[in-house]
Amino acid sequence: MTEVWEYYRLELVAVEDQIRQNLGSKVALVNTVAAHILNSGGKRIRPLLLILCARLAGYAGRDDVLLASLIEYIHTATLLHDDVVDHAEFRRGRRTAGGLWGNQVAILVGDYLYSKAICHIVGFRDQDVNECLSEACRKMAEGELMQLSYKDDASISEREYLKVVAYKTGSLIAAACRIGAVVADADPAFRDALFQFGQAIGVAFQVADDTLDYAAPRESLGKSQGNDLGEGNVTLPLLHLRRHCTDAERLRLAEVMEKKPNGNGELAWVVSLMERYGSIGYAMATARGFVRTAKVHLDLFEDSVHKRALQVVADYMVSRDH
Amino acid sequence: MTEVWEYYRLELVAVEDQIRQNLGSKVALVNTVAAHILNSGGKRIRPLLLILCARLAGYAGRDDVLLASLIEYIHTATLLHDDVVDHAEFRRGRRTAGGLWGNQVAILVGDYLYSKAICHIVGFRDQDVNECLSEACRKMAEGELMQLSYKDDASISEREYLKVVAYKTGSLIAAACRIGAVVADADPAFRDALFQFGQAIGVAFQVADDTLDYAAPRESLGKSQGNDLGEGNVTLPLLHLRRHCTDAERLRLAEVMEKKPNGNGELAWVVSLMERYGSIGYAMATARGFVRTAKVHLDLFEDSVHKRALQVVADYMVSRDH
Repeated sequence: MTEVWEYYRLELVAVEDQIRQNLGSKVALVNTVAAHILNSGGKRIRPLLLILCARLAGYAGRDDVLLASLIEYIHTATLLHDDVVDHAEFRRGRRTAGGLWGNQVAILVGDYLYSKAICHIVGFRDQDVNECLSEACRKMAEGELMQLSYKDDASISEREYLKVVAYKTGSLIAAACRIGAVVADADPAFRDALFQFGQAIGVAFQVADDTLDYAAPRESLGKSQGNDLGEGNVTLPLLHLRRHCTDAERLRLAEVMEKKPNGNGELAWVVSLMERYGSIGYAMATARGFVRTAKVHLDLFEDSVHKRALQVVADYMVSRDH
Repeated sequence: MTEVWEYYRLELVAVEDQIRQNLGSKVALVNTVAAHILNSGGKRIRPLLLILCARLAGYAGRDDVLLASLIEYIHTATLLHDDVVDHAEFRRGRRTAGGLWGNQVAILVGDYLYSKAICHIVGFRDQDVNECLSEACRKMAEGELMQLSYKDDASISEREYLKVVAYKTGSLIAAACRIGAVVADADPAFRDALFQFGQAIGVAFQVADDTLDYAAPRESLGKSQGNDLGEGNVTLPLLHLRRHCTDAERLRLAEVMEKKPNGNGELAWVVSLMERYGSIGYAMATARGFVRTAKVHLDLFEDSVHKRALQVVADYMVSRDH
């Protein structure tokens, strides 16, 4: 993956410049807060994917950089709202905007970044881009709401869990990939293939992220372990565990969820159960399965440096380093 | 105004039907919360204006009803976020969505309604509608952020205050009026005139609303008096008062603002000062001035029942009944 970052370094630098240029609100507060969150060490995976897909589809112009920066605006807007929704104090080791300036500011700067992005996007006058992005935004909000309505409900099915994941995380990554194809004026089949590719790696990414929440030591992700258990978010390793543990263990699990543990012995007990029943392994294997599915959608394209880069990014989505 | 509601009753009923039809998320929580806020007794002023402007510009089709319902979605999304930002417990005498379901739900249903509206809007494939509405949304968020950054700052100018008002309230009303002209395929001059008309009555409405916050008894607006003083929002009557009161009064005013009074003797003292210096009268006169400006923009149009209805609505914006 280091090689991929290096190979597309100039494009990514251009995205950073574009992100800064687009801001420029006359309200100082907007610029300060937006700069804080936009510079908080995000990996720019969505911009990278958009550019890679554009190149794969034969594009050699510069519109992909602007569109990539706008996708990052939308992603950032959702992070601002998510942090308020999750009561998060830290993101990637830094204080959240809500923690520093209050939730009011986080909500409104999120609204601002989102609507600012839409303003630029409609300026492209491309119906596919308009529809694809507005659909993605609707699905993200709907996915977050599904997750909220499933809170503390460990009886949801794996299918329902995967739909939440596809909506809240897959949809914007899928849109980024499709828009790469659109900007290259690719045929519908290529657009659809890259959309499906993005959807599958997006799901893979979120499933892996949910799994690492139980497996990762504190440092690697810059956030604490067991957040989802504490928040009552039921994710794949927990669903697997519930399906395979004994009745007595399932009962105690329900009690633990009720009490909302926070990094204490109960979390360790849950993690040890997950290890015993292979729940973490199962969930990671599921994530890797989505990566494989994703790669199949690339078969439509001839081999190229961009195709190989997309395959590397697909693997990276489920690695511990993202 | 009663006659106007009655004359356009069928159109407004169609808007209500459309508002209900558009909803239909598969997530029950979304429908419940959205229905709560969408049915909370809003006057549908923006939909009415869009329809009146469309008719004034000669439109006889049905697209105005759908667009009117989408404008109401966007307005509702901003109400949901504003109530979270303002820590509001009640709106028009009913509990807010944040109060009933938590701020998380209010934020996300706001995001959902907004992005759902954008999805429908881009389906119209009209560049003017796309640009006009995305600009309005950007300005609304920016206006709210300006207001937040001016909090507790009584040294802002009247010009700065009016810019906040134009952005946060004027822009969506202006967009509603312009879109009425767009749907009627009116000439640019007519589109601009209705945009300016909407902008001016929007400002008039907000200035009157801000003034009535000091003047209105609790019942009439379904909310308590002196909210802005308590929240540190500096509005026109306060700006006028600060400019005309004595140094000693200005000093005490600063102390009162610091303490954030809540319906106690200090608010009564501020209101009595405003009455003595004519601040409430001045602010209401300013609001009425914007109504006069608005009406001038209607000169472009020949006399008709729709034009007279728009003039009535313009006056209604600064009345105590809205």
